Amino acid sequence: MSKFGMVAKFTAKPGQRDALAEILLEAADALQSFENCEMYIVHTSETEADTLWVTEVWSNPEAHKASLSLEETKAAIQRAMPLIAGVESTPLKPVGGKGLH
Amino acid sequence: MSKFGMVAKFTAKPGQRDALAEILLEAADALQSFENCEMYIVHTSETEADTLWVTEVWSNPEAHKASLSLEETKAAIQRAMPLIAGVESTPLKPVGGKGLH
Repeated sequence: MSKFGMVAKFTAKPGQRDALAEILLEAADALQSFENCEMYIVHTSETEADTLWVTEVWSNPEAHKASLSLEETKAAIQRAMPLIAGVESTPLKPVGGKGLH
Repeated sequence: MSKFGMVAKFTAKPGQRDALAEILLEAADALQSFENCEMYIVHTSETEADTLWVTEVWSNPEAHKASLSLEETKAAIQRAMPLIAGVESTPLKPVGGKGLH
């Protein structure tokens, strides 16, 4: 079974980036005990003020899908929605490199 | 000193994606011993045939800059250039989440 990756670019509504980052970091905390989530890293952009990026690696695509059914994830999405102007997410297949499990 | 991140989207010339992936994976191998490179992961896209994504985390921005002066990096860039139709890279600041050192 191959790993599953995701790069997601969130555009926050003006002034809401830091509040959105906090929700995404709480979502990441909830994933600490979710073994098949290998990586869920929240970044601010050095060039775009209202933007956040999340880079993810999961043990397999099913683990990512399963995470969307967690109560914590669903609650985070509900709280985040009003702060988000747009999301572009790209599903990926991690093929190798440094830092993969 | 805060960490430094990067998301880079490479568009390969038609038919060159796998050759380009091989070069990027060799570059990642050369970074295995480069302590301040925490993550350099190569992904194929599930949705775009000619595309590769690299997600990176460095201990600090200087480490990323220093890597560009490594002989292995310079050689890899030289070999990769003819295979690349375009690159969009976004400098990031990793702020937290799961899987950061």
